[in-house]
Amino acid sequence: MIIVIQCTDRVGLVAAISGLLARQNYNIVSMQEHVDNNEKLFFMRLEVDKANGATELEELLVDLLPYGAVVKVNPVAQKKIIVLVTKEYHCLADILIRNYFNTLGAAVQCVIGNHATLSDICRRFDIPFYEVQAGNDKAGFEEKLINIIQQYGFDYLVLAKFMRILSPDFVWRFPMQIINIHHSFLPAFAGASPYRQAYERGVKLIGATAHYVTNELDEGPIIAQQIIPANHSLTVEDMVKAGKEIETAVLAKALKLVLDDRVFVYKNKTVVLE
Amino acid sequence: MIIVIQCTDRVGLVAAISGLLARQNYNIVSMQEHVDNNEKLFFMRLEVDKANGATELEELLVDLLPYGAVVKVNPVAQKKIIVLVTKEYHCLADILIRNYFNTLGAAVQCVIGNHATLSDICRRFDIPFYEVQAGNDKAGFEEKLINIIQQYGFDYLVLAKFMRILSPDFVWRFPMQIINIHHSFLPAFAGASPYRQAYERGVKLIGATAHYVTNELDEGPIIAQQIIPANHSLTVEDMVKAGKEIETAVLAKALKLVLDDRVFVYKNKTVVLE
Amino acid sequence: MIIVIQCTDRVGLVAAISGLLARQNYNIVSMQEHVDNNEKLFFMRLEVDKANGATELEELLVDLLPYGAVVKVNPVAQKKIIVLVTKEYHCLADILIRNYFNTLGAAVQCVIGNHATLSDICRRFDIPFYEVQAGNDKAGFEEKLINIIQQYGFDYLVLAKFMRILSPDFVWRFPMQIINIHHSFLPAFAGASPYRQAYERGVKLIGATAHYVTNELDEGPIIAQQIIPANHSLTVEDMVKAGKEIETAVLAKALKLVLDDRVFVYKNKTVVLE
Amino acid sequence: MIIVIQCTDRVGLVAAISGLLARQNYNIVSMQEHVDNNEKLFFMRLEVDKANGATELEELLVDLLPYGAVVKVNPVAQKKIIVLVTKEYHCLADILIRNYFNTLGAAVQCVIGNHATLSDICRRFDIPFYEVQAGNDKAGFEEKLINIIQQYGFDYLVLAKFMRILSPDFVWRFPMQIINIHHSFLPAFAGASPYRQAYERGVKLIGATAHYVTNELDEGPIIAQQIIPANHSLTVEDMVKAGKEIETAVLAKALKLVLDDRVFVYKNKTVVLE
Repeated sequence: MIIVIQCTDRVGLVAAISGLLARQNYNIVSMQEHVDNNEKLFFMRLEVDKANGATELEELLVDLLPYGAVVKVNPVAQKKIIVLVTKEYHCLADILIRNYFNTLGAAVQCVIGNHATLSDICRRFDIPFYEVQAGNDKAGFEEKLINIIQQYGFDYLVLAKFMRILSPDFVWRFPMQIINIHHSFLPAFAGASPYRQAYERGVKLIGATAHYVTNELDEGPIIAQQIIPANHSLTVEDMVKAGKEIETAVLAKALKLVLDDRVFVYKNKTVVLE
Repeated sequence: MIIVIQCTDRVGLVAAISGLLARQNYNIVSMQEHVDNNEKLFFMRLEVDKANGATELEELLVDLLPYGAVVKVNPVAQKKIIVLVTKEYHCLADILIRNYFNTLGAAVQCVIGNHATLSDICRRFDIPFYEVQAGNDKAGFEEKLINIIQQYGFDYLVLAKFMRILSPDFVWRFPMQIINIHHSFLPAFAGASPYRQAYERGVKLIGATAHYVTNELDEGPIIAQQIIPANHSLTVEDMVKAGKEIETAVLAKALKLVLDDRVFVYKNKTVVLE
Repeated sequence: MIIVIQCTDRVGLVAAISGLLARQNYNIVSMQEHVDNNEKLFFMRLEVDKANGATELEELLVDLLPYGAVVKVNPVAQKKIIVLVTKEYHCLADILIRNYFNTLGAAVQCVIGNHATLSDICRRFDIPFYEVQAGNDKAGFEEKLINIIQQYGFDYLVLAKFMRILSPDFVWRFPMQIINIHHSFLPAFAGASPYRQAYERGVKLIGATAHYVTNELDEGPIIAQQIIPANHSLTVEDMVKAGKEIETAVLAKALKLVLDDRVFVYKNKTVVLE
Repeated sequence: MIIVIQCTDRVGLVAAISGLLARQNYNIVSMQEHVDNNEKLFFMRLEVDKANGATELEELLVDLLPYGAVVKVNPVAQKKIIVLVTKEYHCLADILIRNYFNTLGAAVQCVIGNHATLSDICRRFDIPFYEVQAGNDKAGFEEKLINIIQQYGFDYLVLAKFMRILSPDFVWRFPMQIINIHHSFLPAFAGASPYRQAYERGVKLIGATAHYVTNELDEGPIIAQQIIPANHSLTVEDMVKAGKEIETAVLAKALKLVLDDRVFVYKNKTVVLE
């Protein structure tokens, strides 16, 4: 059973929580905690060795903890995700493979593309694919997206190289539920064509960043990021190609962390309890 | 105040320890723990915000914990180290610099070399340097070492590119107190000339390993290790040169971890609570 | 057009080769060379901007270069590979995906497994899958393998987590044509259960190595290798899981290098001209 | 003997250069070249095995190459550097150590600080130290700097955590001769307090960048950069501390590349021929 807690910090929280668990005969398998001393915030993730009793435990913990505590015991175990794509295959293919072999930690409900390019790979894995063309009518486009995603339900929307900017009207409905992979080490090279920007600036490393989507473009809380070395010998096209490997790896890592209930958000930042 | 605990694991240890600290009005600033479930061993490192009361707390904790628990409250704060060298300067110079600027976390008592090469750099930092030539009389050589180090006292002996093998007779006296930097990613290329071995094997990475010295050559518990990429263009000499940077970094990191009381040893392995 | 050259070194080789190309009106797009000064060996890889005239150029170069030079102009462009697997999917799936999207640099002819586990994923990509059970009759098993692979033809056999050791009788037929991914940073932890070995030794990094297969187990020329950090918190199972990501990445990189004609072999080592 | 060439690209340059060297009986020990196909620029670095004849060879090469070629044969071998600092010791100490052990590739002439903090460490290495306080009179301050540096002469000015911005009036006099270490992975977090910016943005990696100083703050050509992982557990102060290690390493690497005549500059970017 997984327990995640986010609340105001106060002296004795670890003792109070671990005492409650001991009295209720839960054995702690693993425990990670973090305190932000500036903000007086407490974060904790626990794994305990009993599988039942979730409802009562949640109530007991809420009673025990400071007012306003967010406590989840056994957060949705088999989560649902929906993937949005454009034409590039690498992130989607990685997700489909993990989904097929049951190592993703979520079930892919469907894939939506604003091009038909990736339709066949979805068909091969028996995953429904919807082509929704993104014309000039953004409101209409997003309404179509919403119709599809509501039909399935989901815990997270994954933008796996989806090359359209979603409007605030869309984003505000799904706070901290939309995860994007951006092809630069943010905050460097936000916005369009990050590899071209990187090429022109002559950087010696290129990177990728997985982050939650907020209404500020490429400004949402960062979940994971990574870089690889670069040098003068790489053209923009070479960077694009090399970058795909790292985009795939960073998105995979971010999804694993999120789906494992290891990511907490506050003040436009994340706490990742690994 | 730092608290380190190593004991048999049992249900409720975290609750018991954190409960005791709460009752005694200690606030936990940071806490890391690890359980080896195979061996049923529990490891914990805590920082609490009071500076006094160490003796009583140690007694209270020993009473609380399973029989045989090793508890240290406020382990030696300003530790003493003695450095053994041969001719290469890089690790020693890094230690001398950190010592001089008070960022080492220990006080260098003296340096012993089996060559005089590094005498002048020690003099420049007002650190006593002893040349002890290592001839054919190993027992005599080690007796001289022991005479010097006992004169100063020390918490750790650091072999900073000391190119002699110490005899079991020497090593057994200082269990987990001798730290060596070996110039390969152990267990690959133990023994002599690791860079030549690496060159001949044609590896694509070279590394360095800091470990405690035991009576099995290069087989002691590993504290830290790191690698850098290598390729066909490097000669043995190039590898030696490139390796110096990483040897310096790995030894510095290992010393920081050890001097910060973050390293626990069992079954010829380490638990490093960062 | 790609040109690869391996020969005895002598003064003026670069001038001779680049002079010949200039007289023949080839423009050099990229050129990498390496000289092993101990062995007096010269290695070069060139890309030139004409697509025809390969046969004549090869003859001209052989005439120009020291006796015994190996020269290949336009080495097989669309190479064929055959993949051998057991039960683990990660390396195979990565290869199938790249094959399907035409980014592998080779065409997968078929997959052979000594278990049926990975049959369905091959079927989904329309790649023939053969189950050949490896019982006690190794000679018979390898004869069946040879029957299948000869039916297709291939440039490289890829052991993508194929957990059987091929006999010298099999290996000698395909020198530098069999590529294996081993789940450790060789030469550390050769042979069986490298992650268990790594766990027991308590290393602080785990790795993967892609190498050519020779008759010495895990001793063939190394093509690529990489590591990720590890620590005490990882069980053997965690290492296995974390290792899969790096095994996939290292094998993909090695295949790219080999299929791109960037890997030269001599003295049980590789020169990789990137 | 080192030869560096930067010129307009045209067909046959490699053949022409290597042919000339062969006719003059120079043996090529190593050769790296790069062509920027967009800009039609050619860059080459050679090591040849004769030590004399530099002047004639330079003339022969200039005659041979396209108009406007920059050719340097045996660029200044023992270069001079002057180091500017404020209070942080780590980069300076690393430079002083390498200087003392003759592995820097340059001779430190003197150190100038706008605080006296680092005076004693310079004294210990017999390196002249000048304290020049930076008050409100920037022009006066820079005039004092210029007086000191002109007294010594130098090839490069190294800003080793010098926390003042030099005016355009100062910078334009020393184009591509001033090297700075900035404590972020540029272009992210240019300007003041990059670690605070990094902390507030919640990035998962922090970095350092060595670059030439131009009149655009932190916008000059990047020579080397590197990152280390970061996470929520690091305070700003922790980042500052962890960052020092990487700042030291990146500046050391950049200096080695520059002093080894491996860095070429064009279009606000560098080509680094390693």
